[in-house]
Amino acid sequence: EEEPAGFDHEANPYARDPVRHPALVVNSNAPFNAETPSELLADAVETPSELFYVRNHLPVPDLAAGKYVLRVDGPKATLLLTVDDLKRLFPRHEISATIQCAGNRRTEMSNAQTVRGLGWGQQAIGNARWAGARLSDVLGASGLTLDNADKLNVRHIHLDALDCDGPCPNYAKGDDGPAEGVTCYAASIPAYKALSPLGDVILAYEMNGEPVPRDHGNPIRAVVPGHVGARSVKWLGRVKAAADESEGHWQRRDYKNFAPNVTWDTVDWTGSRTPATSIQELPVTSAVTSPAPGATVDAAPGGTVAVRGYAWSGGGRGIVRVEVSGDGGREWVNAEIVGRGEALRPAPSAAGGGVSAGGENRTWRRQPEGREWSWTLW
Amino acid sequence: EEEPAGFDHEANPYARDPVRHPALVVNSNAPFNAETPSELLADAVETPSELFYVRNHLPVPDLAAGKYVLRVDGPKATLLLTVDDLKRLFPRHEISATIQCAGNRRTEMSNAQTVRGLGWGQQAIGNARWAGARLSDVLGASGLTLDNADKLNVRHIHLDALDCDGPCPNYAKGDDGPAEGVTCYAASIPAYKALSPLGDVILAYEMNGEPVPRDHGNPIRAVVPGHVGARSVKWLGRVKAAADESEGHWQRRDYKNFAPNVTWDTVDWTGSRTPATSIQELPVTSAVTSPAPGATVDAAPGGTVAVRGYAWSGGGRGIVRVEVSGDGGREWVNAEIVGRGEALRPAPSAAGGGVSAGGENRTWRRQPEGREWSWTLW
Ligand SMILES: [Mo]
Ligand SMILES: [Mo]
Repeated sequence: EEEPAGFDHEANPYARDPVRHPALVVNSNAPFNAETPSELLADAVETPSELFYVRNHLPVPDLAAGKYVLRVDGPKATLLLTVDDLKRLFPRHEISATIQCAGNRRTEMSNAQTVRGLGWGQQAIGNARWAGARLSDVLGASGLTLDNADKLNVRHIHLDALDCDGPCPNYAKGDDGPAEGVTCYAASIPAYKALSPLGDVILAYEMNGEPVPRDHGNPIRAVVPGHVGARSVKWLGRVKAAADESEGHWQRRDYKNFAPNVTWDTVDWTGSRTPATSIQELPVTSAVTSPAPGATVDAAPGGTVAVRGYAWSGGGRGIVRVEVSGDGGREWVNAEIVGRGEALRPAPSAAGGGVSAGGENRTWRRQPEGREWSWTLW
Repeated sequence: EEEPAGFDHEANPYARDPVRHPALVVNSNAPFNAETPSELLADAVETPSELFYVRNHLPVPDLAAGKYVLRVDGPKATLLLTVDDLKRLFPRHEISATIQCAGNRRTEMSNAQTVRGLGWGQQAIGNARWAGARLSDVLGASGLTLDNADKLNVRHIHLDALDCDGPCPNYAKGDDGPAEGVTCYAASIPAYKALSPLGDVILAYEMNGEPVPRDHGNPIRAVVPGHVGARSVKWLGRVKAAADESEGHWQRRDYKNFAPNVTWDTVDWTGSRTPATSIQELPVTSAVTSPAPGATVDAAPGGTVAVRGYAWSGGGRGIVRVEVSGDGGREWVNAEIVGRGEALRPAPSAAGGGVSAGGENRTWRRQPEGREWSWTLW
């Protein structure tokens, strides 16, 4: 990666961010947030890494893979693992998994009611081949299994990252978190997801056959299939078994789900008055990506227009059917599904090309008409 | 159980059906189909067995527990197991699990469009404590595990029942199915559900602390939490590991999910033209059961009416929030959840008492307004 010449590192903590593909549709520069161009998203089941949407909350850390050490705080042992250790000590596990940002389609949401938060079109979603060590294998080496987690009072697995607004903690040297006044990204997932043999959570060192790129968590990121992107933590510094959820801002004060009547003025993040549950699994969604939203197209002879798009459901619930309507929802026709993630087991993902508009997943839960987004704090 | 005096067994194959609780709301006598009275359903987290809804497709077989033998056809061994063997050879596993009939609320569905199929109110759902052997343990003894299922080409577990419209097959003596012209109930579930350590599928010998009653599958029934009731097969005769779904009528010609434009005249059960997927996991649902539908009530001083009901989601997705509206959906208030199934792991069920009307489950999928049912072949 090259740096822009003459950049003032003191003044701009984002100066060491990587150089990005110019085709990305940028929603924010610092932190960098950008999505895939609409017409390119359904070209292949695997989104090319350089066009994969980027959702950063902080500057991108520059972690040399050769010096990197991941700490794992298990109930019976603390492990210090290099990238090489992760490759050598644990079976390589490869998955085809979709990651979607909770904010995907927030701009559409604004048409219904004004929302806060970064605007996103409908391309804050992508599918890739990821390879790494199973988190359940790594936790197993620290003494934690699906069978003993309850007894050990382990209900959540913390994922502490190394993207910070100040100096990074050095977990390998014994730090227990960032220094006073420094914020680093952090989140957690339920222990059953981390430990289930069908959970498919990995500590990924590869994305689409190459080392994970800097914007996507180099050298090691978590990939948590079926859950909101916010839990697939990038630039992992520590994995920790715990009784409670992560105390991180993005676990406790963001990425939660509320009743429709809750607003930013009345929100109760702690859940002491009304339920405030952390978003984990995402619901079904689908979209037409080509033609792009708002595009003007010429109909072919016969009056037809070919459309392409994606359909995906969180929680391992594969897509069973995709329908498309050309008249605002009165008539629907079945779309051809031309690409799929793995689907033998409860599919960790089922995104891909194919015409789309109204998806339905394996629990027969149809995407609600007129509610195309997945996140609802107005 | 006593039989009605003077009944002609030759003329009526249902003559040996058990005597039922007189409070059950009967939708059909032969086969017997009945639901819990609305006002009683939310009285407790566990529905009393004698008031639990009954969905029979055929006459109730009279199986003496002492002579009963279950056959298990695994990929490496065939097992013959008595009820005592199931209790002795495998750990007892107790779960609190909800079972819901696919037809629950079909009568409401008729208000939107005429439907075929037996009419049901909203009480074809119940929650009970079930105890039995884990299906994964029993299949393990026949040589099948989550790890080797793919390699052995096992993708479905058949559940063959002993309720028939003619002589029962004797699986223990080597029969491979019913005789020509005889139909017995049969269904199947995906292998991953049967084998997952979080699947919680059991071969139940107890319901609410007593032997499973005759109407509910005595002596052994499957309990498949989170899936449609049609897969919790009663009066089990054989469990069989297979590459394909059961060939049974209720797997291939019923309990499937279609696009809204498919009717009984255009339906393609094979899925060769349009997707025709067997219903397994059910979506979220909720209902007010007290006051009963259509009841006239006097408001208390202050104008309030206390309401009770249930909320449940299939697929182990626990209920996170229940809202109730007194004005047709303009204003909603959070309901108090007063009873819950287990929820530490991905909850196998989360039904129970509590005020209800609009449920939301852990994938943030809100029950669609105006679509209260779960089954959609018009
Ligand atoms: Mo996100
Ligand atoms: Mo059913």
